[in-house]
Amino acid sequence: MQALTISPGIPDSLRLDDIPAPTPPRDRLLVRALALGICGTDHEILAGHYGTAPPGHDRLVIGHESLGVVEHAPPDSGFAVGERVVGVVRRPDPVPCPACAVGEWDMCRNGRYTERGIKERDGFGAGHFLLDPAFAVKVGGDLGLLAVLTEPASVVAKAWDHIERIGARSLAWRCRTVLVTGAGPVGLLAALMAVQRGHTVHVLDRAEHGPKPDLVRALGATYHTGDLGDLCPDVVVECTGAPKVILDALRRNARDGIVCLTGVSSGGYLMNFDVGDFNREMVLENIVVFGSVNANLRHYHMALAALGKADPVWLGRLITRRVPLAGWRDAFEKRDDDIKVVITFPS
Amino acid sequence: MQALTISPGIPDSLRLDDIPAPTPPRDRLLVRALALGICGTDHEILAGHYGTAPPGHDRLVIGHESLGVVEHAPPDSGFAVGERVVGVVRRPDPVPCPACAVGEWDMCRNGRYTERGIKERDGFGAGHFLLDPAFAVKVGGDLGLLAVLTEPASVVAKAWDHIERIGARSLAWRCRTVLVTGAGPVGLLAALMAVQRGHTVHVLDRAEHGPKPDLVRALGATYHTGDLGDLCPDVVVECTGAPKVILDALRRNARDGIVCLTGVSSGGYLMNFDVGDFNREMVLENIVVFGSVNANLRHYHMALAALGKADPVWLGRLITRRVPLAGWRDAFEKRDDDIKVVITFPS
Repeated sequence: MQALTISPGIPDSLRLDDIPAPTPPRDRLLVRALALGICGTDHEILAGHYGTAPPGHDRLVIGHESLGVVEHAPPDSGFAVGERVVGVVRRPDPVPCPACAVGEWDMCRNGRYTERGIKERDGFGAGHFLLDPAFAVKVGGDLGLLAVLTEPASVVAKAWDHIERIGARSLAWRCRTVLVTGAGPVGLLAALMAVQRGHTVHVLDRAEHGPKPDLVRALGATYHTGDLGDLCPDVVVECTGAPKVILDALRRNARDGIVCLTGVSSGGYLMNFDVGDFNREMVLENIVVFGSVNANLRHYHMALAALGKADPVWLGRLITRRVPLAGWRDAFEKRDDDIKVVITFPS
Repeated sequence: MQALTISPGIPDSLRLDDIPAPTPPRDRLLVRALALGICGTDHEILAGHYGTAPPGHDRLVIGHESLGVVEHAPPDSGFAVGERVVGVVRRPDPVPCPACAVGEWDMCRNGRYTERGIKERDGFGAGHFLLDPAFAVKVGGDLGLLAVLTEPASVVAKAWDHIERIGARSLAWRCRTVLVTGAGPVGLLAALMAVQRGHTVHVLDRAEHGPKPDLVRALGATYHTGDLGDLCPDVVVECTGAPKVILDALRRNARDGIVCLTGVSSGGYLMNFDVGDFNREMVLENIVVFGSVNANLRHYHMALAALGKADPVWLGRLITRRVPLAGWRDAFEKRDDDIKVVITFPS
């Protein structure tokens, strides 16, 4: 079968390999790939900045935003042949940390997790892949190919879950106004879930043209490209990872405000920063800043619920390009109007 | 009666004034002052950096860490003559914000609160003062003069309350190791409450001599003056407000770690800061940084419970100087070995 593989640490080593199709062990689902979403982490892996091959291997099958159809299911697995599924990215160590032991592998305490297509475990960028039923999520309803958005939506669902749990430290705290920085897939899904919660939503992005302004307005949210004036949100969901945007996000808050950082930025860019002033404002206004990564099973189900409530036409517009596997080189080429690029697999 | 007053904004304007003793309205407690604690905020007010007089007044009676004895109590107020009380610092606006409306004035959303001895309301630095029974806390037990530590302890109780509420965003999160930066009264009380929770506690301070190292060790905690090596705490309680210490606190964390900022620093000191690197670590390790200020009634009661459980000899050593009101100039002079200086009132 065909699989997209890279040599971790070596830039531009991506190629379409022919590798043996997996033979399912008795306790695994065999899944035929339907679609694979590409995200910033994949581009980082392709650039050689990230990613680890499985132990004893040189190459890693990439891809962690999956959608597939079950071709073989163990009896009593809870899954049946023909059902659509999404694979969970992170897997705890066989000796789980206290967080992993209760299914919160997104909060893994010791870092000894593996991640499909990212860290020590082959991903979903292949014609077929295996899933442990405990790390597979059934896709019901009418989402069709849009269910490939489940994984990025799970990351956003976790962010909102934690925003609300942290907000609940104060009995009376209510989120009214949200600022989302960055109108990529994560930012747009964060805005979608904010609108679904009844919040007033503002989205900041550089793009003055292309699909983003319209996608934001179609949610009933306000789109900004420049100065945010005195906008003072209760919650900021930071999705750019850009240092200047992050610094502004850290300072632009209502009292008791919450800033959720979701963008994985690269370092090496020093900025002048008034730490004392920042600290004083954090203290006197009870501000919270927190980082959020990955998602656990509960968040995948929250993601599916959010996608299921969304307008499918709007969701469809997030997928700006659908590229057949044979055109994989195209799929990984960044284009100005890209939001989410999805590779589709031959049936 | 005698009262310590300042002209807000004017450095070194503190003096001992003779002002009319209050006549209690029918719904107020009349309290005779026993002791008044002095803290960093008082020194900031004395330096002219902070503080606002009551509307229509030029001078502000300072003091917010109180202990007094009830001399007059309205019937059905829940208080009786002879009882010891501590005054709550913050008062909501008559038209309360949603947080103030449920008694969470420490989380006031609109900033329209007043604060005894700090913001638009006379403080407790006078021979007698009035208390609204709803903003008075009864001191039971055997604390004696140590109950003057209730207000600073309430600020620490709130910090721990919020650390634990935020920590509960993850089911499996447990705090094991705590780093407290700064061994002033807030830092030492933070360390005390950490030890009371069963945590392993480390305290960092500059002082190599004086009472601090011994006070920390008496808690069973570890005292550090320099390099912390690879100490990787689950919780940092930052109590210095010093930019370099804050930056180190922001980076020194276990996964899922929580940094609570409590020190009110001054700004104006720019540092080189790798925002991208900081952000990446926050995200990939689910780190939380939050500021905490003030306390509500619940935290005053938590503070009294914590003080009641502590070794009174240890608590007594926090009060490094007791200065009679007549020696007020001495009391406000900073000395190297000061931890908490308390002014005592003539009986």
